[in-house]
Amino acid sequence: MINHEYEVKVYYKDIDQMGFVYYSRYFEYFEAARTELLSSIGLGVSYLEKKGIYLPVITSYCKYLKAARLEQILLVKTMISSMPKSKLLINYSVFTNENHAEIANGYTEHAFMNEDKKAVKLPMIISSRLNNLKK
Amino acid sequence: MINHEYEVKVYYKDIDQMGFVYYSRYFEYFEAARTELLSSIGLGVSYLEKKGIYLPVITSYCKYLKAARLEQILLVKTMISSMPKSKLLINYSVFTNENHAEIANGYTEHAFMNEDKKAVKLPMIISSRLNNLKK
Amino acid sequence: MINHEYEVKVYYKDIDQMGFVYYSRYFEYFEAARTELLSSIGLGVSYLEKKGIYLPVITSYCKYLKAARLEQILLVKTMISSMPKSKLLINYSVFTNENHAEIANGYTEHAFMNEDKKAVKLPMIISSRLNNLKK
Amino acid sequence: MINHEYEVKVYYKDIDQMGFVYYSRYFEYFEAARTELLSSIGLGVSYLEKKGIYLPVITSYCKYLKAARLEQILLVKTMISSMPKSKLLINYSVFTNENHAEIANGYTEHAFMNEDKKAVKLPMIISSRLNNLKK
Repeated sequence: MINHEYEVKVYYKDIDQMGFVYYSRYFEYFEAARTELLSSIGLGVSYLEKKGIYLPVITSYCKYLKAARLEQILLVKTMISSMPKSKLLINYSVFTNENHAEIANGYTEHAFMNEDKKAVKLPMIISSRLNNLKK
Repeated sequence: MINHEYEVKVYYKDIDQMGFVYYSRYFEYFEAARTELLSSIGLGVSYLEKKGIYLPVITSYCKYLKAARLEQILLVKTMISSMPKSKLLINYSVFTNENHAEIANGYTEHAFMNEDKKAVKLPMIISSRLNNLKK
Repeated sequence: MINHEYEVKVYYKDIDQMGFVYYSRYFEYFEAARTELLSSIGLGVSYLEKKGIYLPVITSYCKYLKAARLEQILLVKTMISSMPKSKLLINYSVFTNENHAEIANGYTEHAFMNEDKKAVKLPMIISSRLNNLKK
Repeated sequence: MINHEYEVKVYYKDIDQMGFVYYSRYFEYFEAARTELLSSIGLGVSYLEKKGIYLPVITSYCKYLKAARLEQILLVKTMISSMPKSKLLINYSVFTNENHAEIANGYTEHAFMNEDKKAVKLPMIISSRLNNLKK
């Protein structure tokens, strides 16, 4: 339905003493990647928050296939492949930029929350935007 | 099979602009909790690494049930409930310390890796330790 | 004037590929340490924020003397040694728990900010508390 | 002597509950910025480490002038302004991309360390490269 690509470079802050990207850092890469996907369809996180819409993560998953290392450039392919109902599912695949080997993949699920921090149904502003993109 | 409890306090570094613990920080809590579980059964991570055994994460999962907030003390209950074969499964449940509400739960799976960063079978040092604990 | 001691254990999340604690992590340790100092004198950060008082960092400094390593327990000695005027100065010294070698030291300076995110003078609630402790 | 510019975008992971970039995150931005500066003059961190040269941070400092917020793009101007002797000094200034307001500035000092984790003098590979750039 919607695809987006985001590049991120690995720095010292990300690397553990095995010389690999530390496992939780992928969720930071996922967050940047989905922020850019949402921004690319006119649903930037800051914009949504100004409208009183928050997207807290309710589940997160990552499968680590290969180690990523210092100064590698990673390509995060991000996808929303189905219309959200009560929650939004986003999928991620991470590749090395040089040889396109898959490094990791995963997903996050997001609830919709209002300014009072109450769960709400899929906001119109999101559903109408996604419906327009399907066409 | 093996259970362990680990307490962690939430600080500013963990909190995002919703006022909640940022989702990837739970994986840092999980890491501290499993390090203490492993240490409690004589399999400390530093000790294992001196023996040339590494435990890279191959999958990670977390389900977020309630928001955790600044200066809350969280209790992470960590469990190894089955004998590992090619990989080690560790489960986590996170509770608030004051009212024992469940905040989050999840798991990590770990491969076994040697000093040359090659996958290896379940090392004897781990299997014999876990077998002893079952008795 | 006020002293406090805080213990923190080093985990994988903190360690870089040199096998040392990554340099910015010390500022997370400092944050936890000062939060505990402030809490110990009845000025917990959550409490202050409920009163509409925020303490944003305006300068930070750290000198790294020795490397800290995985699973070491560090002792952070935290001090407020002078009455704040327009800003609050907090000093930190980090020691290994086993042999009391100094690992690092540093400081942070904090402004006082209200709920509207405007700089304010030293709030009464802080000055009166610190004055009482001097006696 | 040497100048470099590096852009970084602020994501949720960076933001605290005041809605500002958390103070230690600037040191991560500094690290990425200096890695790119070094890379731009043929002294990439990975390359240096393959040659057995490490650049551990020995002091770090940051002054925070204005708050940076979610989805802002920051420009980090990085400078090496003097020939290192026993240590390398790197300066940083952080600006907003839109109106060039200065957000923060700071510095890091780095020792030179060999593979055995012993302090060493300024390595030839660095001094000759910097001398060439002066000309």
